[in-house]
Amino acid sequence: MKATDRQLHLNVFLMGNGHHEAAWRLPGSSPQDVTNASYYVKLLQTAERGKLDSLFLADSYALPPTIRYKVLQSLEPFTLLSALAMLTSRIGLIGTASTTYSHPYHVARQFASLDFISGGRAAWNIVTSTNDATAHNFADEKLPEHGERYKRAAEFLEVVQQLWDSWEDDALVQDKASGIYADPGSIHDIRHQGSYFSVRGALNLPRPPQGQPVRVQAGASETGKEFAAHAAEVVFTAQNSFADGCLFYTDLKSRMKKYGRQPDELKILPGFCPIIGDTEAEARDREAALHDHIQFDYGLLRLSNLFSTDMTGFELDEPVPVDFLAQQSEVNGHRGRYQLYVELARREKLTMRQLIVKTASSRGHYSMVGTPVQIADEMEKWWRGGAADGFNVMPPYLPEGLELFVDKVVPELQNRGIFRSEYTGTTLREHYGLQRPASIYGQTGQLAVKR
Amino acid sequence: MKATDRQLHLNVFLMGNGHHEAAWRLPGSSPQDVTNASYYVKLLQTAERGKLDSLFLADSYALPPTIRYKVLQSLEPFTLLSALAMLTSRIGLIGTASTTYSHPYHVARQFASLDFISGGRAAWNIVTSTNDATAHNFADEKLPEHGERYKRAAEFLEVVQQLWDSWEDDALVQDKASGIYADPGSIHDIRHQGSYFSVRGALNLPRPPQGQPVRVQAGASETGKEFAAHAAEVVFTAQNSFADGCLFYTDLKSRMKKYGRQPDELKILPGFCPIIGDTEAEARDREAALHDHIQFDYGLLRLSNLFSTDMTGFELDEPVPVDFLAQQSEVNGHRGRYQLYVELARREKLTMRQLIVKTASSRGHYSMVGTPVQIADEMEKWWRGGAADGFNVMPPYLPEGLELFVDKVVPELQNRGIFRSEYTGTTLREHYGLQRPASIYGQTGQLAVKR
Ligand SMILES: Cc1cc2nc3c(=O)[nH]c(=O)nc-3n(C[C@H](O)[C@H](O)[C@H](O)COP(=O)(O)O)c2cc1C
Ligand SMILES: Cc1cc2nc3c(=O)[nH]c(=O)nc-3n(C[C@H](O)[C@H](O)[C@H](O)COP(=O)(O)O)c2cc1C
Repeated sequence: MKATDRQLHLNVFLMGNGHHEAAWRLPGSSPQDVTNASYYVKLLQTAERGKLDSLFLADSYALPPTIRYKVLQSLEPFTLLSALAMLTSRIGLIGTASTTYSHPYHVARQFASLDFISGGRAAWNIVTSTNDATAHNFADEKLPEHGERYKRAAEFLEVVQQLWDSWEDDALVQDKASGIYADPGSIHDIRHQGSYFSVRGALNLPRPPQGQPVRVQAGASETGKEFAAHAAEVVFTAQNSFADGCLFYTDLKSRMKKYGRQPDELKILPGFCPIIGDTEAEARDREAALHDHIQFDYGLLRLSNLFSTDMTGFELDEPVPVDFLAQQSEVNGHRGRYQLYVELARREKLTMRQLIVKTASSRGHYSMVGTPVQIADEMEKWWRGGAADGFNVMPPYLPEGLELFVDKVVPELQNRGIFRSEYTGTTLREHYGLQRPASIYGQTGQLAVKR
Repeated sequence: MKATDRQLHLNVFLMGNGHHEAAWRLPGSSPQDVTNASYYVKLLQTAERGKLDSLFLADSYALPPTIRYKVLQSLEPFTLLSALAMLTSRIGLIGTASTTYSHPYHVARQFASLDFISGGRAAWNIVTSTNDATAHNFADEKLPEHGERYKRAAEFLEVVQQLWDSWEDDALVQDKASGIYADPGSIHDIRHQGSYFSVRGALNLPRPPQGQPVRVQAGASETGKEFAAHAAEVVFTAQNSFADGCLFYTDLKSRMKKYGRQPDELKILPGFCPIIGDTEAEARDREAALHDHIQFDYGLLRLSNLFSTDMTGFELDEPVPVDFLAQQSEVNGHRGRYQLYVELARREKLTMRQLIVKTASSRGHYSMVGTPVQIADEMEKWWRGGAADGFNVMPPYLPEGLELFVDKVVPELQNRGIFRSEYTGTTLREHYGLQRPASIYGQTGQLAVKR
């Protein structure tokens, strides 16, 4: 395998006891482990055995209204990812931070710090927050309007990138003899004064090992896609089908040119939730065991939140009211996901009950039940066929759902020569084939601090 | 030793290559390790060998203007402390967060998360920020006025404590059979609406293992001391002498009664910077090796920052201009430290050069050069004599300064029966003899989640 050969990328998205909303109720699940760092350590050691590119932790700053039925997502990402960095050596660490309810100085610093602690494995999933419950914890009545949030996100990101670059790569002198620790001439106040932020700088940490931690994004609206085309290096997306995946892939990559970017500077990873069995029947049994534990009261609540409309009055065995939903103009939160559900229900003529079941495993991400070979076939098809640069793997239940993927699907992909058998780099940028960016101030492109 | 016997407490305060400002220039120092988590892991493993109560990391959100001469403080505390939690098992982890430039939802969550990750070892050093450079990174011209900052701190803390308590200890049900994960009736929106914050709640994490992470504080002004008397459980303080230590100790403890608190609900730990030798001569040599590396240009800059006055024009061998300094009315930042330096210079009739040397080891904290027995004698004197419940140990250089303390002074204290030979508890509250607080909502006082 030549170093220039295109390779498939695999991120693992861990959430609670797995992505299936009923996973915590399986006999093999430990809901009490979700606040326990060693639970994640074991999972990540499995993922590193599979040579996966990265781990992703989602986040929001509010308690979901469905806590009665649904396991906690996880611990706070900065604290948990830093903890995990110490007991893993290669896997990338992608954490979420919101540009609507955080401050760029803190975010720049925490990702820089994580990048040092992990030896260059940090990435930021840039989100704008999607629910008013978060707004209520930060003195807002409602989330700012959708376009406004993305404007703020763009400025926020600009500030963070300037802060990461505020120390040139060679600013640390550390000369004991002369007593010069750092060269102030190579450390720059950013003096940012914008519409949302005023930040003098510089950062109180040197340029991180990756130069800049990797930028990840997952917006699906028009504005979200423009943002990604301009700024993201890895994109997560929920796609219902291979055909939809191809459309999204072509659409997003074609938007990059006007920002002066090459298509391979951005890796597109559709969500992929595999339910794996040595035989199809075994896989179906595993799916049935999960679906058996679905709570439809919870399903209706979940849909109500997504659609910002009370759905609890609708009959489970009636068709999804797609026309009614399409009329609801004001969806300020999860815009892309809203459309995806309505289209899915329309296309497949689903009842409410069916929509709940269909989205119970992975909330609208592509979900597949099959043997390791069938799953590898499907992944290869998406990857070769122009729908994906890799996948955001969403184990439906844990730890087994991840173990089966690593022990059965990964070897299948390796045998086909499309996925690495050993890590070839040490940083997240190296895993994804993303260049270390030159500083806006200095141009050496060398590591400032070696680990 | 009975469990009820009063014991001495030891916190280690790590900073850069040690507290002496020239420590990074010693042959045995590694300035490049300050951004390396494994450097701190080794130090903490030494501290755990010595059965120390806790580690403290200071923090600010701005690059010091003296970076030309002075090693970085450390990494961002939440990320670093979480990393350290994974490779230590008992030592408490005290991190700094500012109430002036952070948000209570984030702070509550990150300390709760650290408390879970560490199994109940988290504590928060509550600061209000002390310099305008921080203000400039958060869109402020200047730091808010001193009294205003403390008002905001009080409200901030109230919100954080309510968030920590927002889940009763028994709110997690996790009943797989019924599908009830948590009991919404035991999870409370805090609905806080105050002068500075409006936070709906609840926190998106259960009540942390300690119920509430420990509250640490280090203000020295009148307002700061009132705040501590009301709210702190551990207090750091800089004291020039045993006599000053006694005055501060009595003063602070006597302020607690009006808040309905017992004196032993708050532990006072004066800073203590030991330069240790097997003989006095050896200790003096170590001090001289450090002092030899002092840079007086840096010293003048440091004093200028502290006094908010340009001191670079003053002659090094002239007396400190104490009257001039006493007249400077507007010291909005480090009020307590300002007074301490002026008094020290007045009492000991110091020149500028002498003041710089005197404060180079520990910036005004008590500093002592001597043998392990002399140092243990002094500590015992402060502890028995009503000046301290323990010490904030500030190794002047690292790693040796800490190793000597752990291997030579700690056994001396243990032999005298005043310091533990084994950890008897697992949480930071247990180490300090502080009770796990009952929730404002529930009263069970039991651990919600066992680790
Ligand atoms: C895989 C994936 C993960 C996401 N993770 C988060 C998250 O952790 N926090 C969050 O607030 N939004 C998250 N989102 C939502 C998106 O980042 C985005 O904010 C949302 O789709 C709304 O933007 P849009 O209107 O451009 O689609 C995620 C979306 C996807 C597909
Ligand atoms: C040991 C010690 C550690 C401190 N650590 C910090 C810190 O990490 N960050 C900070 O902003 N201030 C720190 N301070 C400053 C105090 O917390 C306090 O903000 C300062 O003394 C000003 O308050 P005052 O005017 O009440 O004295 C520290 C003080 C002491 C004695």
